[in-house]
Amino acid sequence: MPSLNDADLPFPPSAVVAGKGSTWRDWQVMPGKARGVSLKSFKTDAKPFSGGNKAADQEAVAALSAELDELQNLFYADRRFKLLVVLQGTDTSGKDGTVRGVFARTSPLGVHTVGWKAPTEPERERDYLWRIHQKVPAAGEITVFNRSHYEDVLVPTVNGWITPEQTQRRYEHIKDFERLLAETGTVILKFMLHIGKDEQRERLQERVDDPTKHWKFSLGDLEVRKQWDDYQAAYEALLNATSTPWAPWTVVPSDSKTHRNLMIATVVRDTLKALKLRYPPENPALSKLRIA
Amino acid sequence: MPSLNDADLPFPPSAVVAGKGSTWRDWQVMPGKARGVSLKSFKTDAKPFSGGNKAADQEAVAALSAELDELQNLFYADRRFKLLVVLQGTDTSGKDGTVRGVFARTSPLGVHTVGWKAPTEPERERDYLWRIHQKVPAAGEITVFNRSHYEDVLVPTVNGWITPEQTQRRYEHIKDFERLLAETGTVILKFMLHIGKDEQRERLQERVDDPTKHWKFSLGDLEVRKQWDDYQAAYEALLNATSTPWAPWTVVPSDSKTHRNLMIATVVRDTLKALKLRYPPENPALSKLRIA
Repeated sequence: MPSLNDADLPFPPSAVVAGKGSTWRDWQVMPGKARGVSLKSFKTDAKPFSGGNKAADQEAVAALSAELDELQNLFYADRRFKLLVVLQGTDTSGKDGTVRGVFARTSPLGVHTVGWKAPTEPERERDYLWRIHQKVPAAGEITVFNRSHYEDVLVPTVNGWITPEQTQRRYEHIKDFERLLAETGTVILKFMLHIGKDEQRERLQERVDDPTKHWKFSLGDLEVRKQWDDYQAAYEALLNATSTPWAPWTVVPSDSKTHRNLMIATVVRDTLKALKLRYPPENPALSKLRIA
Repeated sequence: MPSLNDADLPFPPSAVVAGKGSTWRDWQVMPGKARGVSLKSFKTDAKPFSGGNKAADQEAVAALSAELDELQNLFYADRRFKLLVVLQGTDTSGKDGTVRGVFARTSPLGVHTVGWKAPTEPERERDYLWRIHQKVPAAGEITVFNRSHYEDVLVPTVNGWITPEQTQRRYEHIKDFERLLAETGTVILKFMLHIGKDEQRERLQERVDDPTKHWKFSLGDLEVRKQWDDYQAAYEALLNATSTPWAPWTVVPSDSKTHRNLMIATVVRDTLKALKLRYPPENPALSKLRIA
């Protein structure tokens, strides 16, 4: 019985996209660079995609969001691919806001969001990719991960719960896992939402000052904030270790929420367009069919 | 929160076992051999573990089965490891019989069996390891796969549904996947139940002649039998490509059902014993506890 697995691709679809002369290529962490990237070289307040002012950018996001809805419909009909969007970033970096802002108009039938929390007991009793694998997109589906398996090379690494050797081994597991997905038709886009430390202070303060936002705040966030430099270092290490042709990382300057959405929506749109999606061929038998 | 993932092992547990001077080492496909093994060099009617006659072997299997029950209890209490047993082999090679014969006395609480059939529609919409990953054993559990992900480099390969390059890529996926499991505490034992073509004819004939065994027979089995040589070649190729220190293949001569059980039970027993399992340390607080 032939199956979709027969569609194993000769090359990962993301590689095609990453190779194009996209304007957002400058923000991708290109794998295999001798020295790797320095996270500090990416400005958190840059606006490389801006049309000049916030109003123009907001309009552009709205237009892109509508375009994405159409593309998603075609993506679902085509069914040759799956799309996995990974959103990573520190507290307040805007992961929830991205889901709302970018996929606002897209049908929830074709877009699934998974928010990853600390693992449960049954999850901890298997390898850390076990729960992740269960939630990967099916043919024609778009799945957005709000946090992801990359938490497993951040939290335990920063806190010293695993050794540097274990972290390195996990990078390899993750690259292997993503290659499996890519070679069986999954387009993978990974976004690191990059905000400055001052910007985080303002956003946390806002949550404290506004009682209606208290639910978004926990005192634990302040403990994590104390480890800011360690987390930045862990992010830099994972970006360099796990950006691959089949699952590249894009660093998104995210001090501006509007521009963040503009940039991510553009990358997703460009990626979907590069796939040359098409509706399945018409069925000749149907053209002659007359419903009685 | 430290988790079981912190138990990531510096080396895969199976490697320890494979390195010992076990008598069954001769039947393991050792990885990295320059020329690889030839399946024909393994005799299907060999009885290297036999005590001399069938009655003695049956007694030995019963004793081993009881020993496995005790070891499983300890394995569950220890909870540092997971055990995955993979059974592969052509029709009538005795996969069901192995489950019944070897794990007959073991508590179903600690041993789970998964029989893999042709993938369903939702399963075909993800990569072929997606459904497999969902069923891997949790800490302290023993899971037996009756058929497995190796069907995905047998059926489509023999029938030409995937290209030789795709088959090679799948070998790599599978090795990567099994390494992830091994490095997070899973001991993996893979058994190829090796029967001769004449033996299969007899067993199929038996099913045809006995109406109470008709449910075990399908005409499709005869089509598969016609591809005997192709399947033997595909088995030989996968044994050589996917036997690794962390997940070695053992070829089990299976013309004799009793001896097949004897051999597999011995390998599983030896493997569990080599793990130096132990009950978790006693709790000093409990030794002073007087229940009122």
